[in-house]
Parts: sequence; C-alpha cells; structure tokens
Amino acid sequence: MRVYKIAILPGDGIGPEVTREAVNVLQVLSEIDSTFQYEATEFNWNSEFYLKHGRMMPEDGLDMLMDFDAILFGAIGDHRVPDPVTIWELILPIRKNFKQYVNFRPIKLLKGLESPLKQNDPIDFVIIRENSEGEYTNSGGTMFHAEAREMAVQNTVMTRQGVTQISEFAYQYAREHGLTKVTNATKSNAVIHAMTFWDRIVEEVADKNTDIKYEKYYIDALSAYFVQRPESFEVVLASNLFGDILSDLGSAIVGGLGIAPSGNINPSGEFPSMFEAVHGSAPDIAGKGIANPMAQIWSAALMLEHLGRKDLHDAVLAAIEEVLEEKKVLTPDIGGTASTKEVGKAIARKL
Amino acid sequence: MRVYKIAILPGDGIGPEVTREAVNVLQVLSEIDSTFQYEATEFNWNSEFYLKHGRMMPEDGLDMLMDFDAILFGAIGDHRVPDPVTIWELILPIRKNFKQYVNFRPIKLLKGLESPLKQNDPIDFVIIRENSEGEYTNSGGTMFHAEAREMAVQNTVMTRQGVTQISEFAYQYAREHGLTKVTNATKSNAVIHAMTFWDRIVEEVADKNTDIKYEKYYIDALSAYFVQRPESFEVVLASNLFGDILSDLGSAIVGGLGIAPSGNINPSGEFPSMFEAVHGSAPDIAGKGIANPMAQIWSAALMLEHLGRKDLHDAVLAAIEEVLEEKKVLTPDIGGTASTKEVGKAIARKL
Ligand SMILES: CC(C)[C@H](C(=O)O)[C@@H](O)C(=O)O
Ligand SMILES: CC(C)[C@H](C(=O)O)[C@@H](O)C(=O)O
Repeated sequence: MRVYKIAILPGDGIGPEVTREAVNVLQVLSEIDSTFQYEATEFNWNSEFYLKHGRMMPEDGLDMLMDFDAILFGAIGDHRVPDPVTIWELILPIRKNFKQYVNFRPIKLLKGLESPLKQNDPIDFVIIRENSEGEYTNSGGTMFHAEAREMAVQNTVMTRQGVTQISEFAYQYAREHGLTKVTNATKSNAVIHAMTFWDRIVEEVADKNTDIKYEKYYIDALSAYFVQRPESFEVVLASNLFGDILSDLGSAIVGGLGIAPSGNINPSGEFPSMFEAVHGSAPDIAGKGIANPMAQIWSAALMLEHLGRKDLHDAVLAAIEEVLEEKKVLTPDIGGTASTKEVGKAIARKL
Repeated sequence: MRVYKIAILPGDGIGPEVTREAVNVLQVLSEIDSTFQYEATEFNWNSEFYLKHGRMMPEDGLDMLMDFDAILFGAIGDHRVPDPVTIWELILPIRKNFKQYVNFRPIKLLKGLESPLKQNDPIDFVIIRENSEGEYTNSGGTMFHAEAREMAVQNTVMTRQGVTQISEFAYQYAREHGLTKVTNATKSNAVIHAMTFWDRIVEEVADKNTDIKYEKYYIDALSAYFVQRPESFEVVLASNLFGDILSDLGSAIVGGLGIAPSGNINPSGEFPSMFEAVHGSAPDIAGKGIANPMAQIWSAALMLEHLGRKDLHDAVLAAIEEVLEEKKVLTPDIGGTASTKEVGKAIARKL
C-alpha cells in the first residue's frame, strides 16, 4: 500500500493554527480508512527561521521537498520580515521551481454559507490561474535613486509555452468535468504587448477545442461581472496577477477568505504540488485561535483529490458543508463564536 | 461672461446616444441659468473615421483639442477596428499628452439605486487612479514569432514624478473634502520592482500628510473588501491598472456601469481635461436606444464642477437622483423599460 509522503510547511501567523486542523483531518481519515496512509514531515520555514538563519529555507530546501508527494502550506509573513522576502524566497521559488504552473482555485458557494450578494443563483466555478510567469517576475529594477528622474521598471514576461500549457489545462479541466465554457480574463485593449500575446495563444488553444465555448472579457468588466452575474461562469482562465485578484474577489462573493482553498499544481507529476488556503498569515488575529480552518482543510482535500483520492476529497467537503449547514460551530469570520480548534474538531467528527 | 468651449467626441456604439443626452442637459442648463454659457464643437473621431482615414484622429487632432476648456468623450470601439487601435490612437494619447494624470472616479450609491450587496451602509468613496504611466505603456514587444520560444515582454514604468503627483492629488482631495483616510492599493509583495517603488513614493507623500490616515492593502485583498466592507473607504489611491479594475468593480457594487462617471483631469489646467462614462461603447446594445445615459450625464456634471460650477454639478446629480428615486423612467440595466432619450428628458425636466 502506498504511504503518501506529505511535507507540512505551517509558516507564520494563523498558518500553523489552521494547518494543525487540516493535518488532524488527515489523521482522522487515515484512522477510519486503512487504505489511506500518510507520513507527514514538518518544516519550520517561516519568518522565525529567517531571523535565525538569514534565509527562508535551507540552501537545499527545494531538494528536500522533492522527495514528497505533496506539500501542505500554511501561510507566510509576519511584521518582522518584509513581505517580498518571505514571498520571493519561499512561496514563489516553490511555485516556479516545481513547475506548479497551475494555480487552481474553486469558487463555490458551499451549502450553509451566505453570499454577501443578493442574487440567489448557485455560484460554482473555478479559476485556473497561470502560476509560473506573467506579472510575477523579478525582472526589472529601479534607477536614479532619490533623484527627480527616479523610476522603476517591471517586466511582465509571457511565453508561448507558459500560456499554452495553462490554456490547455483549462480546456482539459473543462472537458473532464463536463463544463461547457472557458472565460478568458484579459486586458489586451490596454496592456498591448503582453495581453494581446496572451489572447493570441489562448485563442490558438481555444481553436483546437471548439466543442467548448470560448468567451473573453477585459479584467475590469469581468471583475464587475463577478458581482453582477457570478452564476454565469464555469472556468475562468487568467494570468498570474489577474488570477490573484479574481480569486480573492471570487472568495469574497462565496463567504470570504476563511473558506477559499487553492492548489499549486504541477500537472505532469514530475514535481510535488502544493496546497494552501488563499488567505494570508493574518497577523492581526494570529494567536487568538479564531482563524477559520475551513480554507486549509478544503486545501488538504484538494491535495487528496490530486493524490488520486477524490473519494476522500468529497468526504471532507461534505463534512465541511455539514458543519456549515448546522451553523452551530463556526468561527467569527462567518458569524459564529467558535475557535479554530472547535471547528476543526467538528469537521473531523463528521467524518 | 465666460463662454466655455467644449469639445464633444461622441465616438462609437452607445457613445453618441448617451452623449446626446448629456449635451442636452448642458443645453437646458444654459437656458435656465444665463450665467452658464457654452459652445460645443463635435468631432467625429471614431471607428468610422478610422476606416475612412486610416487613423483615429487627424494628424493635428491634439492641437485642435488644445483650444477647448474641456472634452466630453463618449466611448470608443466597434467590431471593425481592433480595440488596441481605437484606444492607443485616441483615448490614451489624449490622456497622456494632455497630462490628465488623474483619473477621478466616484463610487457612490445614489439615492434610489439598489446595490447588489446585502449590506446596507452608505457607499461613498472616490478612486484616484494614476492615469499617465504604470502598466499602460507601449514599451515592450514580442519575439520569436511562432517559434516554441516565442514570448512577449511588457514594461510597467513608474516614475517618482508620476507617483508623487497622483499621491499628492489624493491627499489634497481628501483634505479639501474633509475626508480622513487614504487607502493605497498595491501589490508590493509580488510585483516587486514597480509596486515597492510605488509604495515608497506614496509613503513619502503620506508622511507629509500625517493628519490624514494612511492604510495599504494588496489589490487582491482590497478587491474582496470592496464587496465585504465598501462603506469603510474614503479615498482609494491606485495605479493605472489597479484603478481600472477597482473602478469597474466599484461601479458594480453601486448599480453598475450605466451610472459610473469619470474625469481624466489635468490638475494644472495647462491642458483640457476629459470626461467620460466608465462604460465602453457596448456594441451589443448600440442602436437600440436602451443605453443608460446617467453615467455620461454625471460625467458632464463632473466636467461642470471642474470648470468651476459645482452648483451646476450638484443640480445635475440631484436631478439624476430624483429620477432614480421615482423609479418611473429607468433604462433596462437598472430594472426599467425606458429609453435612453426618455431618461435623458426626465433628468432634464427635473432641472
Ligand atoms: C478603454 C480602456 C483602455 C480604458 C482603460 O483601461 O483605462 C477603460 O477601461 C477605462 O477604464 O477608461
Ligand atoms: C502572497 C502572495 C504573493 C500570493 C500571490 O499573489 O500569489 C497570494 O496573494 C496568493 O494569492 O497566493
């Protein structure tokens, strides 16, 4: 029997608090289902580690992670280390080096949850975000420090390979899940070089998949549609930055960041994929035990699905929905008074 | 008495339809208030013009506009001309050459309008969007056409002058309007070169204006907050692209693009400023006479305020609100059955 090797990176702030509950759910699953066994190894690569060692992970950190089947990531960042450091030395190197070029973010209004929108139609779509290039590059710089002519340049870089592979993933995902439409988030009317290129490559892939409907909106209009008619989307395909924005916005219309999960996926399986709540380390509520663990538990469920255990994913999601529907054990972000631990336990009990 | 010289660029699609109603409102104002006189000159620079002349405006188009006190712009784009052409050869050259470095966008839930959000607090803030540089540059390009290694690069360029002047405008606006807080929209955790520079310059200005509260959010989180707690914002300061996204999103939470106005402002007055609805030319409903003229009429009101006639601005906005509150003459986008013309007339009648 396969024993999944899982790397746990709890991180900073509420990261460890919510990750503990997610690992507890894995533990419970392995107890009730003997066909699911795992071995978790924790890595304390966080701001504390940085303050001690001057780096976010050991020099051979990526090599160490290579041995694992998947990574469960908490959240990173506290006030003692600049955000760009924690991010460009930990999250982004993992995403980029492990070719996790898909950032997968379901936007689904779970049973029992209330949307801040008046509209009542079910909301259930996914954002497929390019996760390896685009607006997130360290190419560029600043010049003429403190002079009147001081300036900064930032290079967005998009490649045929990068845009093709994410577009193909989006179409493949749509087909495998019986979905009928891919929506391209673009801004080719203004961000001429990068986004007209993006559209051209996306449309090359769309032209090979004419059984699935293709539509394209400018990111500004699309953001408005997320509020006005979120029920009309199935698969939203977006660049790195646009996907980042749309997924927080998407999470807001279905109950907030306390719920929103994500997977950073390397589709070939050559490298481990990484799963993390969309939310950050939330230093303002860290240590209070009130963070909602649902986003991280759902992220762990996405990990299980990725590892071939869709059955366990579905069981975990059903357990989360049961707890939501009962409305008895909820954290403050969704109107309850329960603690992180209590919610984690309630979900585990449902399993 | 001063006679304001106003250039009218109706543009494409619904642009001419809604602009006609806005000009009609100006006409009515000049009839009832003899201290307000204007002279309108129409320029048919649109897609039709492009198809005839191979350019979006005459070679000396910008010179021709220089004579005017302000520009009222409809909307541009139809399916016969690629969007980047209409935009990079007409809207953007005007914004950039006339140093309209402020894109001013009020987000206000008018009386009588329903928000798609369940929350009931008043929504009333402004987005101050950098309008001359940033993500909107034609610097960059593509390489290796059709090869496997094909790629595109897009340069975001931010300058000390550009970021300083928009930040100063935001603080000055806040102070002049008795507002207490400026919210900086950033992404300095990921878009390292440009956005850490942006933050640094914004914060230099913030440090000189400590009587006004400063806060900073990443654009992804901020987009979510627009849905979750829009009542908490007063002045939102954003880069060109982020301001573009936030203003469509903002318009969605207060009734949609049929209402949202904007001003492209050259604060020094050295060049004419330009006023336009946030919405586009909407080719899908063009010619049907059902476009909502309120956004364009409100834009004309912003123009009046810019020209020193805040009294007229307030009168027009009050007239729009009266029509909204009566709920009798509304276009389909906000739940009515009236035509563009009927709504325009109803507003004019209130004056
Ligand atoms: C037409 C387009 C280039 C423009 C922009 O992105 O600035 C529009 O969306 C706007 O907001 O005025
Ligand atoms: C932490 C940050 C760099 C990250 C991103 O922008 O990708 C986060 O917002 C996310 O969405 O995972």
